[in-house]
Amino acid sequence: MKLSARSRLKGKIVEGKKGTTTAHGKIDIGGQIVTAAIPNESVDELKLAAGQSAYAVVKDSDVMVGVD
Amino acid sequence: MKLSARSRLKGKIVEGKKGTTTAHGKIDIGGQIVTAAIPNESVDELKLAAGQSAYAVVKDSDVMVGVD
Amino acid sequence: MKLSARSRLKGKIVEGKKGTTTAHGKIDIGGQIVTAAIPNESVDELKLAAGQSAYAVVKDSDVMVGVD
Amino acid sequence: MKLSARSRLKGKIVEGKKGTTTAHGKIDIGGQIVTAAIPNESVDELKLAAGQSAYAVVKDSDVMVGVD
Amino acid sequence: MKLSARSRLKGKIVEGKKGTTTAHGKIDIGGQIVTAAIPNESVDELKLAAGQSAYAVVKDSDVMVGVD
Amino acid sequence: MKLSARSRLKGKIVEGKKGTTTAHGKIDIGGQIVTAAIPNESVDELKLAAGQSAYAVVKDSDVMVGVD
Repeated sequence: MKLSARSRLKGKIVEGKKGTTTAHGKIDIGGQIVTAAIPNESVDELKLAAGQSAYAVVKDSDVMVGVD
Repeated sequence: MKLSARSRLKGKIVEGKKGTTTAHGKIDIGGQIVTAAIPNESVDELKLAAGQSAYAVVKDSDVMVGVD
Repeated sequence: MKLSARSRLKGKIVEGKKGTTTAHGKIDIGGQIVTAAIPNESVDELKLAAGQSAYAVVKDSDVMVGVD
Repeated sequence: MKLSARSRLKGKIVEGKKGTTTAHGKIDIGGQIVTAAIPNESVDELKLAAGQSAYAVVKDSDVMVGVD
Repeated sequence: MKLSARSRLKGKIVEGKKGTTTAHGKIDIGGQIVTAAIPNESVDELKLAAGQSAYAVVKDSDVMVGVD
Repeated sequence: MKLSARSRLKGKIVEGKKGTTTAHGKIDIGGQIVTAAIPNESVDELKLAAGQSAYAVVKDSDVMVGVD
């Protein structure tokens, strides 16, 4: 499926932890870390695991901009 | 201010366009593009402009994970 | 790409309007209407138009529950 | 209360599971499933339970559009 | 309708501006300002106008916490 | 870091509970309560605790408007 969310950052899953319902994971994007909170069931459906290639996908309106 | 949102990806603003109320911009994160939709007024407050260093900041629960 | 967002409701685009940067559209899901605010550029990339089949895709943490 | 979020899809709760803090549930919308992640406390406040009628409510900017 | 989103801050609309599709407004919550980006059509539906009482409503997972 | 998210409401943390991965907390904003769902790890990083001053920070597009 092609999606209206345009930020799709390719990286590698470096860490993951399931909670009772919500899993937290980290994706390394060229040396920078994106952290994601997704349902446990999505981890199972997509067979996500550390070491695997994956995309961090974000909707445009969910990206904030910061400056030092 | 230190923030609970943990994904803070450093990059460079490569494009920006103001709308009537909402601005759209692109940040290059090590060769991958993050697109952001933020208020025009935030562009003014932060003096954002193409060529400038900036962070794409995203809440953990706003990151989806995708696999090919 | 397979995605961690699990709500994917199939329907038909019944209305769309581009703004200066942000487009608004309506998708009919079996007689109920979902309204979406997405970037103009996504409308162009996905060649979205009224009359077309499309999915409304929503992250689990973006769904609220309401009762009468 | 009347709300600016315009997508209010009427359906029936078909499944629910509380976590330690976050509950996950499924609402059947005319045969299609919406999954929601909401606070345990909201489940208690609204007395949500499987079998009950409920609305899946989503903000316009939280709806993505996908095409095959 | 009762809603799973628990932050409902009562205040007064102090400013509003419609864009082509998206309106931006400010609500004064006891002397602090919340800014909202909502569809123009919601402004019309709810007949929102400066000077009016209104609630800023936010989903739990959309609230970040910051410290100095 | 200065951020494009403009709603920053100063208050005091009045309650907090960690889950397995996701923590829920309440911030008192001049007598009104904002509830937040953030990662456990952010609670640790920011050393958040009841009784402490903190900001509830919200992106403009995550604020809904409600009227009675």
